[in-house]
Amino acid sequence: MTTPSQMEEPVLVNAPPPYAGLNHDDKLPTVMTYATSDPSGGAGIEADLKTITAHKCYGLTCIVAITAQTPVGVSKIVKSPKDLVEAILDGNLRDMRVDVIKTGMLTRDATHVLRDRLSKLEESARPQLVVDPVLVATSGAMLAEDDEVIKDICRLTHLSTLVTPNVYESMQIVGKETALNSVQDMIALAKKVQEVTKSKNVLLKGGHCPWTAASGRKYVTDVLVSGSGTHTIYESKFCPSKSTHGTGCTLASAISSNLAHGESLEHAVYGAIQYVHNAIGIGCNVTKSHVTENGPINHVYGIEKPLDEMVNDVCYSAHALNSAAAGTKAVNSNLKAQIRDSGSFFEFLISDPRVKPHWESYINHDFVRQIADGTLPRYKFRFFLEQDYAYLENYAQIHCISASKAPTAEDVDKSVTIIGKIKTEMEKHREKVSGYFGIKDMKHFDQIRKSDALKNYARFFLDVANRGSWEDLCVALSPCLMGYGYALINQEKNITVPEDDIYYAWCQDYLAAWFKEGMEEGKILLDRVCQMTEDWDSLCKIYAAVCELETQFWDSALAYEPEQN
Amino acid sequence: MTTPSQMEEPVLVNAPPPYAGLNHDDKLPTVMTYATSDPSGGAGIEADLKTITAHKCYGLTCIVAITAQTPVGVSKIVKSPKDLVEAILDGNLRDMRVDVIKTGMLTRDATHVLRDRLSKLEESARPQLVVDPVLVATSGAMLAEDDEVIKDICRLTHLSTLVTPNVYESMQIVGKETALNSVQDMIALAKKVQEVTKSKNVLLKGGHCPWTAASGRKYVTDVLVSGSGTHTIYESKFCPSKSTHGTGCTLASAISSNLAHGESLEHAVYGAIQYVHNAIGIGCNVTKSHVTENGPINHVYGIEKPLDEMVNDVCYSAHALNSAAAGTKAVNSNLKAQIRDSGSFFEFLISDPRVKPHWESYINHDFVRQIADGTLPRYKFRFFLEQDYAYLENYAQIHCISASKAPTAEDVDKSVTIIGKIKTEMEKHREKVSGYFGIKDMKHFDQIRKSDALKNYARFFLDVANRGSWEDLCVALSPCLMGYGYALINQEKNITVPEDDIYYAWCQDYLAAWFKEGMEEGKILLDRVCQMTEDWDSLCKIYAAVCELETQFWDSALAYEPEQN
Repeated sequence: MTTPSQMEEPVLVNAPPPYAGLNHDDKLPTVMTYATSDPSGGAGIEADLKTITAHKCYGLTCIVAITAQTPVGVSKIVKSPKDLVEAILDGNLRDMRVDVIKTGMLTRDATHVLRDRLSKLEESARPQLVVDPVLVATSGAMLAEDDEVIKDICRLTHLSTLVTPNVYESMQIVGKETALNSVQDMIALAKKVQEVTKSKNVLLKGGHCPWTAASGRKYVTDVLVSGSGTHTIYESKFCPSKSTHGTGCTLASAISSNLAHGESLEHAVYGAIQYVHNAIGIGCNVTKSHVTENGPINHVYGIEKPLDEMVNDVCYSAHALNSAAAGTKAVNSNLKAQIRDSGSFFEFLISDPRVKPHWESYINHDFVRQIADGTLPRYKFRFFLEQDYAYLENYAQIHCISASKAPTAEDVDKSVTIIGKIKTEMEKHREKVSGYFGIKDMKHFDQIRKSDALKNYARFFLDVANRGSWEDLCVALSPCLMGYGYALINQEKNITVPEDDIYYAWCQDYLAAWFKEGMEEGKILLDRVCQMTEDWDSLCKIYAAVCELETQFWDSALAYEPEQN
Repeated sequence: MTTPSQMEEPVLVNAPPPYAGLNHDDKLPTVMTYATSDPSGGAGIEADLKTITAHKCYGLTCIVAITAQTPVGVSKIVKSPKDLVEAILDGNLRDMRVDVIKTGMLTRDATHVLRDRLSKLEESARPQLVVDPVLVATSGAMLAEDDEVIKDICRLTHLSTLVTPNVYESMQIVGKETALNSVQDMIALAKKVQEVTKSKNVLLKGGHCPWTAASGRKYVTDVLVSGSGTHTIYESKFCPSKSTHGTGCTLASAISSNLAHGESLEHAVYGAIQYVHNAIGIGCNVTKSHVTENGPINHVYGIEKPLDEMVNDVCYSAHALNSAAAGTKAVNSNLKAQIRDSGSFFEFLISDPRVKPHWESYINHDFVRQIADGTLPRYKFRFFLEQDYAYLENYAQIHCISASKAPTAEDVDKSVTIIGKIKTEMEKHREKVSGYFGIKDMKHFDQIRKSDALKNYARFFLDVANRGSWEDLCVALSPCLMGYGYALINQEKNITVPEDDIYYAWCQDYLAAWFKEGMEEGKILLDRVCQMTEDWDSLCKIYAAVCELETQFWDSALAYEPEQN
């Protein structure tokens, strides 16, 4: 701990970062959420404000009712008095710049007040309006009878840029049940909603009725029907998740925020759907253990902690405090013992129970066996080499970022050397592919269509590079090196292809002495990395994830079939 | 615009980014704000939720009253009924994980309910409590008489980890006015507050009474007195700003969020003060033009727009929509005409009215004249060379990031070549300094104490590197090259130092043919950059900022005096 005398020296707080200062008096886009409070933070104005903030917009509120609720249920609802709602709305419209208004669960009074005030404004002075026609909250509470609410909402929607009903709300709005077996059915329903609500645009959300493709894959379709008669279909993987509380609020707020930033409607909806998918997929664990349903989604998955930035940045004087506090962090002696037993940090990583299965399926992959015995179809090998070429481009880029984060000048040198080697390897790939498969036009290599497996892998690298530490990056870059070496050692006895075969040459590359030297260096690097951080837990997660991405990369080569057209 | 037929092909929404997925079911730290709503979004639970979200925490609320207010004033206050507050608090404590509770403006009922519920919890099960003892809002509204409020707050604070009064609130709490002329006065007042409130720790905020240093610089001191009797003094530059609405709420929420992340109290406070300074310094413009006072601060200065990330990332399919929309962006023909008239983008940049004054004072800096005529004291030159050495390390790092963002393989090569050249130049610097100033131990160069001017410059580079585009980075890296060349051309006729002087050699380096070739290449690069982006406005801002940072770098060398001890 710090002592009184240590602390007599003041800790200097720095001036704001100059780059951020370029946006002095930033004209942040503004979004007002006109809705009900959910104190447990998963839905309502709370979810809206979180979403608006995560989208770098300025959030305003008009709270039309306060509920007492948690994911378990709603225990109380208190409506805001009409004159309070009027005073808030009038104040915001008078003194604040309101770019977009987003509505959620409403009261009758609030609906009437909003309709009245917006009707009185010239269309050019009117904020854009996004109506999320909430009939029943996920938690089952409602403020009014459905029929009544629908009528009220429909009195408002002729002023709206967009309404965002789900399939149940849509059927309530149009007044009858419809079967939804195809995209055409959804488009028809959305157009009907557009007719009834008189809203310029309608987004029909299909999240409640996932479809199953011939492959067995479950997917979700959302349909945007716009005023000009065009429509856009968004297709996404169905995420079975318990973290779905507040998804409707979040989607409408994300669309509103993107619109406030001046994005096109198609784009605003795309970004919002992706945001909600990420927030559901990542989820968050903030309820007590007895609460098992409707956990909240993760609105802040993309945000960086400001204090981390300050402490990691040499330019902030947070260091002074940090170094004082550092002495108190005890090194986990248990972990130290584990690595002593494993022999090296690499051995520790691959024997971690979270990593082991992914590492095993990676280094025992059938792709390598089929190369070793020559049974891999040549067109699959070509696909792989081309994807690998595109991968190397990304791999070099990530080494550039690694160099920028390197702790010593020697580490920078090493990264720069590796970048040079990667470029040489890319040259070799081009020669190999063009020579063996007879490709004349070198532009071919700039036009490789990246597979999903490659994109996924590349995105992971980029995320680690952007958000992670140098240590994280070193670990992320390791499996590609170590795994190829081990996979070939495993298959060495099975290499039966003739020595003049390209497959043979490929195998020998990863069995060569220079490659094994690289692996030894890689192990030494990992040993250094594990001394520099206490967070071995996240290093294990990264190692496991990359082994899995490597496996998927080879999977995709085995599964590859050329397109028919 | 998109046509119906174009859109029949669905737009695929991707699975969540895999790196983010490592935090599946993220145990986000949680903070509950127990306070009043400010619908205009600058203060109250709105500011709290924005701050908590910007700190990557999960926000919960308990709204004890709703105001109708804007920065202009408060028109209405409606208190939440006691049973609603009870139901909300009980629900959150029962079903949600509540790590920290932060209070703001309270009602009597709300104070009593909170005290009652927290008292009943075992200390180990009790959330940390941070009390911001709000007596009067910046906008002048209050919910109760000061005396009454103070008594209520003091009944709560024996349960609190921290209270965060400003100087007025502190004097109200201790019951008498005190002169605050020194840090010792502040420490004494904070200790008195600690005594009266029985709070474990007290942060006395000095923002309302800035002091003036002998140099005329205005600064602010905050004092943290902790339970163990230690104290920490935080000193920061006073920012005269109209954007101060909600600073108290924001500070306490930021501290609460940092505590929820498990930071030490000293660290949590440092990070929060810095966050508020940044948010004030950057500010935001969200009020209508007739509103001239107490504009809100910028809670989201550090946040990236999720959609930008999706569109810039090759791995997202947002591209499909983006390329459809790209056709609609008209090239600004007016700007094109301007650059045609200027001859090159470089000429356009330095003649821009925002850039010109900064560029002029940079390239006509007296530092260079004093080198040219030999009047610069040698110890200042040595200081400059050492700082410049440390600068080059950062400059190389930024070129690594630039390489990672480069659009073509050729650009990557160029960056890697430059990194090599910078390392050679650093070698030369070491030889120059060690030879001329007789330094034997090369460790000297690893221990250079970075000046504020250097830190500021380095931080700017890092921010552009992290947040900006490749084009932004190219522009940010340009003034260092171009300015040294022009500054020396300006002073060429004044070079009167003997040819065997180190000053002469320094001047000739930047007048050499190879350096001028570099400048020509630099101009060609800028011409390419301006073709690749429409956002010339921000490029001008960056150019101006870097010219200013270069000027400050030379200023600091001229102002340098060795420390006396």
